[in-house]
Amino acid sequence: MAALANPARKVRRLVMTWAKLEALDIDTRGGIEEIVAPEVVDKDAITALLPENALHQGIALLPTPLPEVTIADLPDAIASIPVVVAVLDQVTDPHNVGAILRSAAAFNVSALIMPDRHSPPVTGVLAKAASGALEMVPIIRVGNLSRALDQLAETGFWRIGLDGHATGELEQVADKFQKIAIVLGAEGKGLRQLTAQKCDLIAKLPISPRVESLNVSNAAAITFYELTRGKRSC
Amino acid sequence: MAALANPARKVRRLVMTWAKLEALDIDTRGGIEEIVAPEVVDKDAITALLPENALHQGIALLPTPLPEVTIADLPDAIASIPVVVAVLDQVTDPHNVGAILRSAAAFNVSALIMPDRHSPPVTGVLAKAASGALEMVPIIRVGNLSRALDQLAETGFWRIGLDGHATGELEQVADKFQKIAIVLGAEGKGLRQLTAQKCDLIAKLPISPRVESLNVSNAAAITFYELTRGKRSC
Repeated sequence: MAALANPARKVRRLVMTWAKLEALDIDTRGGIEEIVAPEVVDKDAITALLPENALHQGIALLPTPLPEVTIADLPDAIASIPVVVAVLDQVTDPHNVGAILRSAAAFNVSALIMPDRHSPPVTGVLAKAASGALEMVPIIRVGNLSRALDQLAETGFWRIGLDGHATGELEQVADKFQKIAIVLGAEGKGLRQLTAQKCDLIAKLPISPRVESLNVSNAAAITFYELTRGKRSC
Repeated sequence: MAALANPARKVRRLVMTWAKLEALDIDTRGGIEEIVAPEVVDKDAITALLPENALHQGIALLPTPLPEVTIADLPDAIASIPVVVAVLDQVTDPHNVGAILRSAAAFNVSALIMPDRHSPPVTGVLAKAASGALEMVPIIRVGNLSRALDQLAETGFWRIGLDGHATGELEQVADKFQKIAIVLGAEGKGLRQLTAQKCDLIAKLPISPRVESLNVSNAAAITFYELTRGKRSC
């Protein structure tokens, strides 16, 4: 529904079951029919169109991809409203990346930057976990993460790596910068050494020493919240 | 490993592959052999012992269950250190419950309370997502959630429901109470009306209006962080 409503996409094809069409309220149905005439098919026909094991709820959309966004397109900080982007260093689970995107939309994070390799495709499970946020927060896929971190510095971003071994807490640094790129490492492995070296500083969340780390999407959610909170009270 | 190291459990049986045993450092191996003699078997034999589709890394443990904990066993607040428990109202995804447990351990939440029905079993996927936290934060399963919310009030807990339609933000109420039960609703559906009515107050997280809600484990993580943060600065 979010993809359908996004004016930045063109709709190539919409298939849905009769039951799904009937369950729509009249305004939603009218809105859809202004954009595209839905093809009414049975559930198995939709399953056959989708990748194996894909879950669907009786509806499938084939839209054009979103326009590509690059680091050069990122917005500048205006007055005291900070710009935050998130950099994912080999976060591979599409559920996690989807949930991170959803939290990014919730806390007005400007973009998610991730490497072309070692990142999940921007479809299916990821889109479902993102719950519409794929239409709100651009994903910037880069060939070389190290180069992207350089580019971020060139455009005025402070690169903060999140790592449990840091000495300082995120809360202590969150208020200091107008443009922040928060760098999150892979599930289990954390930040790679080369990535950590590219960061201007490393910070941690105040978790109990009995726990090694948080789920990466939970760590991201807290980070986005903290970075927003700090600025709200300014 | 966390279950094996937990003195509250007795170990009935430990099976592992030769490769797994060889990969352990000498201290860990010595520690394990003091508790139980591992049976060395091949990978398929472990798969055959486990439920269908269970993922394993060449090791499986059969421990006794943890001792049962009830609401009456919850600790009292000492000085300015608050007691926080989380109540899950029909959160059904074991990945989410596992991640919530992991964040609960990280922020010293005292227990997770969830209904017997409409909650995932405390095994497999949940245990893996919890990443050892199953040994740290007791799960209290209750027959009747409404009754449990009454009991929490009787033992001095303020019941705060998290809901996007609330007028007040969590941050504004977090500092006021010494014993807090934070109540989280199901994925997609949120708090049920009957559950919300049992809460002393309803609060929301400061998310953008363009997003309806967060992933429930992300919302829980932010909440635990905020409740801890507030008290830290007291």
